[in-house]
Amino acid sequence: MSDQASFFRVENVEGRGDAVIVCEHASNDLGGADDALGLSAELRHAHIAWDPGALGVARGLAAAMDAVLIHATASRLIYDLNRPPDSPGAMPTRSESHDVPGNRHLTATQRQGRTAAHYVPFHAALFSLLARRLAGGRPTALITVHSFTPVYFGARREVEFGIIHDADDRLARAILARDTGLLSRLNDPYSAADGVAHTLALHATPLGLAHAMLEIRNDLIATPQAQRDMADRLAPAILAAVKECL
Amino acid sequence: MSDQASFFRVENVEGRGDAVIVCEHASNDLGGADDALGLSAELRHAHIAWDPGALGVARGLAAAMDAVLIHATASRLIYDLNRPPDSPGAMPTRSESHDVPGNRHLTATQRQGRTAAHYVPFHAALFSLLARRLAGGRPTALITVHSFTPVYFGARREVEFGIIHDADDRLARAILARDTGLLSRLNDPYSAADGVAHTLALHATPLGLAHAMLEIRNDLIATPQAQRDMADRLAPAILAAVKECL
Repeated sequence: MSDQASFFRVENVEGRGDAVIVCEHASNDLGGADDALGLSAELRHAHIAWDPGALGVARGLAAAMDAVLIHATASRLIYDLNRPPDSPGAMPTRSESHDVPGNRHLTATQRQGRTAAHYVPFHAALFSLLARRLAGGRPTALITVHSFTPVYFGARREVEFGIIHDADDRLARAILARDTGLLSRLNDPYSAADGVAHTLALHATPLGLAHAMLEIRNDLIATPQAQRDMADRLAPAILAAVKECL
Repeated sequence: MSDQASFFRVENVEGRGDAVIVCEHASNDLGGADDALGLSAELRHAHIAWDPGALGVARGLAAAMDAVLIHATASRLIYDLNRPPDSPGAMPTRSESHDVPGNRHLTATQRQGRTAAHYVPFHAALFSLLARRLAGGRPTALITVHSFTPVYFGARREVEFGIIHDADDRLARAILARDTGLLSRLNDPYSAADGVAHTLALHATPLGLAHAMLEIRNDLIATPQAQRDMADRLAPAILAAVKECL
């Protein structure tokens, strides 16, 4: 897989913490796509291309928790790693109210090429990492870090911190129970029923791992400093919750 | 993964059928283990080392259905591909009423080595194969082929053909509804609740694939001819059931 490894990165691989942190929407890099998928410069920096601020928070959490972090280095508009290959959202032709011209009329071969270059190596690497931990008897919680737009299809979202789970709700509820000073909700602004928890369904549920998908409203993490502050705010709650569940 | 590929094999990779067939317990080869795990020659050929007859049936089904087949080439006593790495059954110290001396006192590093050599490459290859099909828009059902011993812990099993499912029971029920002339039962002699459906949970459920785990009583498939006959008997039922579910 070495020729494909450039679309994801693993950091702090020797981390001794109990969590594995994942950031599928870390990057808005469209360098791997012809003509930047036909998007304007403005859209390339908008939330449709990535989860702004999520990587900074994920890195802060990984540092505070001494956790390994795996993150994408290409935009989710090329391939959304949190969607299976047959999902319309994997290589979307539309996102919110914007067309993605470069994703119209993809052939089966092109879809297979992006899947082989982005989706398969990322998830194979995460799978390998998790399997190694389990074989070594290491307690492991899987935490994915995302951000969401404060205004979606014109509607303002009040929630600041959403915690989403797949089949096992223990870790999500344990995080929710801690005071972070944020307006926090379970399975909001979306839930696994919306098909947004694919990474958790693919890895955490079949391996029986405690898990949570963290969704932070992106206006709260717009700068590197705000991302560090958010990580500092969340880390104690998440560390305590992970400890409770393992 | 090329250096590890010797512990599994993919056959009929260009198959045009709608099924992907998996045989995790195809082999009783202990060549990769020191001192054959300390087992007697008799035990090395017993059902604890593999699923006798399963590969012959799986090959017959793959031929009849023009399906790709992926199967193990090492014994499940080295690594049981249908178990996660933290399961006691992945590298069992006991199987039915027999000790497996070579699996006692495995270190974390040894467990990680077997996991990296057997479990990870097998499932990464299956995942890659399934992802490619989904990206190409190909309908796909996942079928795993197993055999079970007619006498287990001294008790005789009457069932001849067990059909097991994970979260989605459609394909299993559709196969059960067809007449194969066998004494057939759903989720018998075990079910997903016993942790025996890991391959289905790892691949079929998160990818939303129709799926079934076929369990054939091994006294019915003791010879190559009996395996071919069983495949011929089952193939029409399975083909029809797959067609119904896709």
